Amino acid sequence: MRDVAVIGVGMQKWGELWAKSLRDIFVESALLAMDDAGVKEIDSLYVGSMTPGLFSGQEHLGSVCADYLGQRHIPATRVESACASGGLAFRLAWMEVASGISDVVMAGGVEKMTDVSGGGATYALATAADMTWEGVSGVTFPGLYAMMAVAHMDKYGTTREQLAHVAVKNHENGSKNPRAQFPMKVSVEQVINSVKVADPLNILDCSPITDGAACAILVPADKVKDYTKPGVKIIGSGHANDTIALHDRADMTTIRAATEAAAQAYKMANKRPEDIDFAEVHDCFTIAEIVISEALGFFEPGKGGPAAEAGETALTGKMPINVSGGLKSKGHPVGATGIAQIVELTEQLRGESGERQVKDARVGLAQNMGGSGGSSVVHILEVM
Amino acid sequence: MRDVAVIGVGMQKWGELWAKSLRDIFVESALLAMDDAGVKEIDSLYVGSMTPGLFSGQEHLGSVCADYLGQRHIPATRVESACASGGLAFRLAWMEVASGISDVVMAGGVEKMTDVSGGGATYALATAADMTWEGVSGVTFPGLYAMMAVAHMDKYGTTREQLAHVAVKNHENGSKNPRAQFPMKVSVEQVINSVKVADPLNILDCSPITDGAACAILVPADKVKDYTKPGVKIIGSGHANDTIALHDRADMTTIRAATEAAAQAYKMANKRPEDIDFAEVHDCFTIAEIVISEALGFFEPGKGGPAAEAGETALTGKMPINVSGGLKSKGHPVGATGIAQIVELTEQLRGESGERQVKDARVGLAQNMGGSGGSSVVHILEVM
Repeated sequence: MRDVAVIGVGMQKWGELWAKSLRDIFVESALLAMDDAGVKEIDSLYVGSMTPGLFSGQEHLGSVCADYLGQRHIPATRVESACASGGLAFRLAWMEVASGISDVVMAGGVEKMTDVSGGGATYALATAADMTWEGVSGVTFPGLYAMMAVAHMDKYGTTREQLAHVAVKNHENGSKNPRAQFPMKVSVEQVINSVKVADPLNILDCSPITDGAACAILVPADKVKDYTKPGVKIIGSGHANDTIALHDRADMTTIRAATEAAAQAYKMANKRPEDIDFAEVHDCFTIAEIVISEALGFFEPGKGGPAAEAGETALTGKMPINVSGGLKSKGHPVGATGIAQIVELTEQLRGESGERQVKDARVGLAQNMGGSGGSSVVHILEVM
Repeated sequence: MRDVAVIGVGMQKWGELWAKSLRDIFVESALLAMDDAGVKEIDSLYVGSMTPGLFSGQEHLGSVCADYLGQRHIPATRVESACASGGLAFRLAWMEVASGISDVVMAGGVEKMTDVSGGGATYALATAADMTWEGVSGVTFPGLYAMMAVAHMDKYGTTREQLAHVAVKNHENGSKNPRAQFPMKVSVEQVINSVKVADPLNILDCSPITDGAACAILVPADKVKDYTKPGVKIIGSGHANDTIALHDRADMTTIRAATEAAAQAYKMANKRPEDIDFAEVHDCFTIAEIVISEALGFFEPGKGGPAAEAGETALTGKMPINVSGGLKSKGHPVGATGIAQIVELTEQLRGESGERQVKDARVGLAQNMGGSGGSSVVHILEVM
């Protein structure tokens, strides 16, 4: 297998992009990535999207995206693993280049979530959970993550304030990201006093509904010299699943799919958690960032909350997490999120992140999650 | 890259499986494939499904299927390319084994289409076309394929009777397939006099709405000796796309995505169309089989209709096509169809097909199609 590098990335400012269609949004980010990489053609395309059928009434997204990108006859593959669809697209693009089948592969992610009304978005998102056993009981994602939060508080003493600190820190980071949907700063008091969604989670504990896309271009590492920008090497990739239903797991205070995927990625990269300089993780809810920061080995179980409160995960902390603003502030167009994490890692490792640049960033990790942890994809990238 | 072989396949009798859920249907076929291969565990899973969100209110199918199969922590990936989702799952499973990442990979396909009522299935299927430009005009798949039929009749003189001969032949083959949804034989007169759907296509020119799944197990070719059944080698794989909308193509009488995918597969296999002993092709409508039999190079453009009428594509003809009964008689649970084609090729190449066995079958081709030809996947398999 060949070593693989990212040579270009692109994403537009995310938000409620009502003036643009699903395909417009994809193409806009794809062209930014192609410009960044300096390529006019790609050999193959992977598109991660969770449920364009329910959100936009359009499936067959490989064909749609390749067509409107002007790359009509290439292999174009849509993959889905709920909110981990983008990370999975990146993994398959890596696999295709690593295998030697193709040389220039685009991994993209896209979701247009604001074209459904009423409870449409909540229903569409709920199809990432177990609709037969969870959905039928009326539980949706805020409820599932609230149950994890209650269990984590009960077992480890995690506090309401610690959850709020995750939101405060991510909005602080997002305020430095010109592409973030909600770049405003928030205070601990604002989070704690914001409207209740599913106890103990308030609206400011939840990632938003977003339209957006993100794309990355992958090439063999030994061909990076043919391009103008520095390459960023993919040194680890992992992908694992778990029970689709939360209640089928032995422990609701951790995410085993993330731990298993990380173990694969750490092994391939020959790295340990302490070798990671910064990470983008799947903070769909504030509790998720705490649980994941433990599942990835950055903190001992139960220590994620205190670490967030102590500022250890801030931009200038010893383990910066979600310096992009995370899903919380940057936005969460579900299928695009995994690729946006790669965009952040790539720009950070190229030293292009301006106000939110992590000092001496050489190794970054991205963790993308599907559902309540039914799936997870982890990648580790390094400066070349 | 390593050579890869199919070591086991499975599928249940297809039909209106109202007593079984989406996940039941998948697991049933998956266990048949694991029994056939003699394996108790798999390293990785690919599931092709077109739109379980719209048909069954359930996405995140990789997690659901791995979970209910009792393989909870493996990487499990759902892929979608409309009705070519199954073929695409097979291609990615091949890629994962060929790359050396995994040794025992399952490629599955599943769709449960009968749980929606009214125009639900027609709407769900229409999302495989261009919903912005085709769907908005009210055209659905029978209409799109009817336009292809009219164009083919106009350009080449293809007749209404020739279309009927495809249906007659596929139901004749399906009558020998115990897993076919509609195993009854039909006559040319019955097809011509059946109720009109979209002129010139009648109901007996159309593949049905079906519940079903199919699975295959892939391993490195050099490990086939560790298993009990003979392996069947994957010697060619191709995948290509085209414009999502029919009206954007230069020629509506052919399917360029199929020609391009076949060219890749023929090149990799070092085979020509005349080296293929039999083929399973995507006969979602009778006209599709004729167009595809030309696009794959089995017949000159315009000669597919006369060949079908002359019996050249019959079980005992010189180029047997859809000896399984095809989508037309066997049924068409969209995401499962591409894997069912692999099931038929594998069993034929192992000499297990009983009454519908192709004599001296050594090389088989499977062509799976998405939408009106927005995507196509082609595989060539050979006796080891």
